[in-house]
Amino acid sequence: MQQYFVNEYIENKDYSLNANDSFHILKVMRKKVNDKIYIAFKGGERYVCNIKKIDNNTVIVFPELEVNISTELPLETTIAIPPLKGTKIEFLIQKSTELGVNNIILFNSERNVAKLKNEKIDNKISRWEKIAKEAAEQSKRGIIPKIIVLKDINELISYCDNYDYKVIAYENEAQNKGNDNLKNLFKKNLNNISLLAVFGSEGGLSENEVAKFTDAGYTKVGLGKRILRAETAPIFFLSCVIYFSEIL
Amino acid sequence: MQQYFVNEYIENKDYSLNANDSFHILKVMRKKVNDKIYIAFKGGERYVCNIKKIDNNTVIVFPELEVNISTELPLETTIAIPPLKGTKIEFLIQKSTELGVNNIILFNSERNVAKLKNEKIDNKISRWEKIAKEAAEQSKRGIIPKIIVLKDINELISYCDNYDYKVIAYENEAQNKGNDNLKNLFKKNLNNISLLAVFGSEGGLSENEVAKFTDAGYTKVGLGKRILRAETAPIFFLSCVIYFSEIL
Repeated sequence: MQQYFVNEYIENKDYSLNANDSFHILKVMRKKVNDKIYIAFKGGERYVCNIKKIDNNTVIVFPELEVNISTELPLETTIAIPPLKGTKIEFLIQKSTELGVNNIILFNSERNVAKLKNEKIDNKISRWEKIAKEAAEQSKRGIIPKIIVLKDINELISYCDNYDYKVIAYENEAQNKGNDNLKNLFKKNLNNISLLAVFGSEGGLSENEVAKFTDAGYTKVGLGKRILRAETAPIFFLSCVIYFSEIL
Repeated sequence: MQQYFVNEYIENKDYSLNANDSFHILKVMRKKVNDKIYIAFKGGERYVCNIKKIDNNTVIVFPELEVNISTELPLETTIAIPPLKGTKIEFLIQKSTELGVNNIILFNSERNVAKLKNEKIDNKISRWEKIAKEAAEQSKRGIIPKIIVLKDINELISYCDNYDYKVIAYENEAQNKGNDNLKNLFKKNLNNISLLAVFGSEGGLSENEVAKFTDAGYTKVGLGKRILRAETAPIFFLSCVIYFSEIL
């Protein structure tokens, strides 16, 4: 059953969906009156809703049954990464949303070729937010991850000062150092904590940037023996977070 | 340093690279005489090689230093999945290669829209093998994963009869059953075993198909509370395999 996000929840009332969602329900999913859909309301409540009426291409639903099973991870997980080239960043937003991320921070580093610029950034953010919303609907998340754009590493470090655990992914092909740090992270109780993981772009982070993060208290973690692409490393990390917070 | 795969290894001899690899080294990576590249030879040996000569657009290298650190997982991991629509299957081949998979089996199921057909299948396999080779080079794998095409589930079950562990990914949104089976799998010693994981296409596997696998001794495993897309589920699974076989 497909899920949609809507803003308010008014108890025991019919709810009219917006034009975009109505179009998707009627034309893409081909739903009819008395078919069911999931709706996640802004406060995090999720309901099985009955399609009560279709009024001039607007879908009107009635929330029938609250769904009490949370699909959210028991911690707040944030990934921070410079924007990647082409569609890679869109791919990463989609996949990390499926994998339960709460916040995706984009920042400029020394080596990322695709820079965040002030002009057109609002358009880009809207597009990224749309990708996150659609992926959250598809994977039946309770929330839509936030997309946050920060100027540079200094702003990132200051913005994330209050996180409980802060790690930086560090590839060291030859020696695979940092794996113990990853193990130690996942030995901790991850319930109700906030966790930030920073990744480099295609060209990686510079030694100078890595030093800035470690000086600010970030722990370097290794991600196995192979060289993962920039967009694959966060997916690997989030998969481990799911395992250790939800399955183990 | 970029890596290339070549077929034979002749000890202490100069080695001429083929036209494709020479083109990539000279035109894409812009390497010159006395620059270094990695070469993985068919037997699994990996060397740092010196570019000794460039002869009429052919790169001639001399293997200087054997690299003894394996980038292969300590087990043989196989994923089996029906072909996915559009570029999703290519994406999955690339990502699962980065994540250390050994074999990728494609098979027809009841619900996969993108069917494997006899005509043009050789072209498709060549394309998929090229994607696997390039991803293996980029992630510095010791081997290139094999792409295996099987007709249907019966052929898959019989082909994989000898695997040590066989699991089937099973999404049960409401109750998240199967997580204990995943935990039990990762409690095992994964060294030197063979592991097969079967996934459905966009439409999932039918109940009838799931029953066929369980009758054949496959264990159902859950992959967390969210609904993962068909191409994301194997990536999540392989990430966990890396963690439990290589990092833990």
